[in-house]
Amino acid sequence: MIEDKNQQRTQLNDLGEFGLIEHLTKNFKLNQKSTVKGIGDDAAVLNFDNKQVIVTTDLLVEGVHFDLSYMPLKHLGYKAIIVNLSDVFAMNAKATQVTVSIAVSNRFPLEALEDLYAGIETAANIYGIDVIGGDTTSSNKGLLISVTAIGEIEPKNEVYRSGAKPNDLLVVSGDLGAAYMGLQVLEREKEVYKVNPNSQPDLEAYSYIIERQLKPEARKDIIKLLEDLDVKPTSMIDVSDGLSSEIIHICKQSKVGCDLYENKIPLDPQVISTCEEFNIDSTTVALNGGEDYELLFTVSQDDFPKIKANPNLSIIGFMKEEKEGIHLVTRADTRIPIKAQGWKNFND
Amino acid sequence: MIEDKNQQRTQLNDLGEFGLIEHLTKNFKLNQKSTVKGIGDDAAVLNFDNKQVIVTTDLLVEGVHFDLSYMPLKHLGYKAIIVNLSDVFAMNAKATQVTVSIAVSNRFPLEALEDLYAGIETAANIYGIDVIGGDTTSSNKGLLISVTAIGEIEPKNEVYRSGAKPNDLLVVSGDLGAAYMGLQVLEREKEVYKVNPNSQPDLEAYSYIIERQLKPEARKDIIKLLEDLDVKPTSMIDVSDGLSSEIIHICKQSKVGCDLYENKIPLDPQVISTCEEFNIDSTTVALNGGEDYELLFTVSQDDFPKIKANPNLSIIGFMKEEKEGIHLVTRADTRIPIKAQGWKNFND
Repeated sequence: MIEDKNQQRTQLNDLGEFGLIEHLTKNFKLNQKSTVKGIGDDAAVLNFDNKQVIVTTDLLVEGVHFDLSYMPLKHLGYKAIIVNLSDVFAMNAKATQVTVSIAVSNRFPLEALEDLYAGIETAANIYGIDVIGGDTTSSNKGLLISVTAIGEIEPKNEVYRSGAKPNDLLVVSGDLGAAYMGLQVLEREKEVYKVNPNSQPDLEAYSYIIERQLKPEARKDIIKLLEDLDVKPTSMIDVSDGLSSEIIHICKQSKVGCDLYENKIPLDPQVISTCEEFNIDSTTVALNGGEDYELLFTVSQDDFPKIKANPNLSIIGFMKEEKEGIHLVTRADTRIPIKAQGWKNFND
Repeated sequence: MIEDKNQQRTQLNDLGEFGLIEHLTKNFKLNQKSTVKGIGDDAAVLNFDNKQVIVTTDLLVEGVHFDLSYMPLKHLGYKAIIVNLSDVFAMNAKATQVTVSIAVSNRFPLEALEDLYAGIETAANIYGIDVIGGDTTSSNKGLLISVTAIGEIEPKNEVYRSGAKPNDLLVVSGDLGAAYMGLQVLEREKEVYKVNPNSQPDLEAYSYIIERQLKPEARKDIIKLLEDLDVKPTSMIDVSDGLSSEIIHICKQSKVGCDLYENKIPLDPQVISTCEEFNIDSTTVALNGGEDYELLFTVSQDDFPKIKANPNLSIIGFMKEEKEGIHLVTRADTRIPIKAQGWKNFND
């Protein structure tokens, strides 16, 4: 589907491990005051003064988390950074640095890795973070990307999953289900392409949902917005595995229950129309699709006036006593227990 | 060669991603004052007060960095931590935390991962570090381990690769080449085993070099020793890729030259005898073998009295002006330019 217009192919063998990481990161700029020393020694050195340090890590594996037949490498590099920054923002923190390690088979030429690192560099520049380390090695099969993201926060500002209280409002940023439906469209086009490699798909009608799949953003803006509104969530998590499993995480760790209102779940019109086209229930997609990288959080009802009119935020439920359980309140006003589905990658 | 005595096999499919990391780390204790919050939220939270933070990361890939036909999983877990802590110590820093991510194919049962994590836990307890995060996912083939290690240091105590000066002494801890020769013995036994699976190898004569390959240690003790001796190296690096490439790193980054004395390179008697048996030159092994995880550093000549009699340290050369180049001075007193060989994994 995605034609490789870059005909130059430099074998990785020609560079060796020592040359590769230097080559790929030589133009990367350092943006953060807290970065004392980046790539080039045994380790990076950081200085956060009196702030606390946030650390999170994620692996992306070819064939499990991404398919290079429709995921351009530049987008993949961008997305690998985003999914980690999203976890830093979910702590209400500022993202500051990342390390990026890759294992890659010899089927990839140097130019492919340059594309990957171009996406990493773009994300680093847009989010103002520094790439401070990494490792490159060969793999027997495919591409694997391991990112560790680091952030900083004033000790009093941290938000854990465990702070939700009964009667708190449940709030989500943006809209849900788009990345999952974008994936469905891309998978369908891949099948079409297998049958007819000359097909020229018109994906205009799916532009939003495809972008949500291929080039997601992390909600740095929401952390800024909450600060500007003077709202500190009582709990927060990012929506990576689907709304249902994230609600369950908050409820279990906060020891509370929850009523989630089906008619309040924010859906983009393209998600609704594509769900109709694929004959999939849009609520199921929002609950179990995942990869939204929106922020799900709870706030005290006292904060309702501050957030009620904000177009970036949707109030989708209420926290309850733990014994009342976790339920979806449907449009027909029935209550269905919510169970985690998530991405059980070991079932693949 | 290594028989799996654990006959129980629990499929990873039965657990799912959410259950696995919790299951594997549920008994891990937190040792470090700087760990505010470990595994269990979107990210870990650390507090280093006014100290600087050290971050380093390494990938270990099955078939590239290890061979499970002779590497027990518990040893592998241990080694994956050690190779990262070694980089922290090479900054003259204290190691404090690690994150551990694994990608694993369904051929591994849960019990195999429990063995892997038992080795990780052992290393964490021996070195007093906390496992604060990680990711587990499936892979299409084999096992991959990505570790990020974090450490702390007073700003004035950092040692970079770039601080060596002409006339400084070049010093290495322990001895070199043992891990590489251990690998040669293990590879030979693997070939024997292929021909005769009932062979019972007597590896007693190779116990030291095999242990150096399968269960290396990181030289935390040397960092303590240098502190006790009141010696601050002018530059430092750990010996992971072989002495020659590490010397070149120090020389290039410090803009100095070096004379390395062949007759001063510390070799264990088992390395010498095994080199004779395999008809390999022991100096070549020390220069290019790698995986020693010793510390290579330079000190001012003023510090000579403090280190000269220490059995853990060998003075192996002198730093020179950059224009004089980097040479091995042989036992026959000839000078041979040193070139990096290292592990060019992309040539595999």
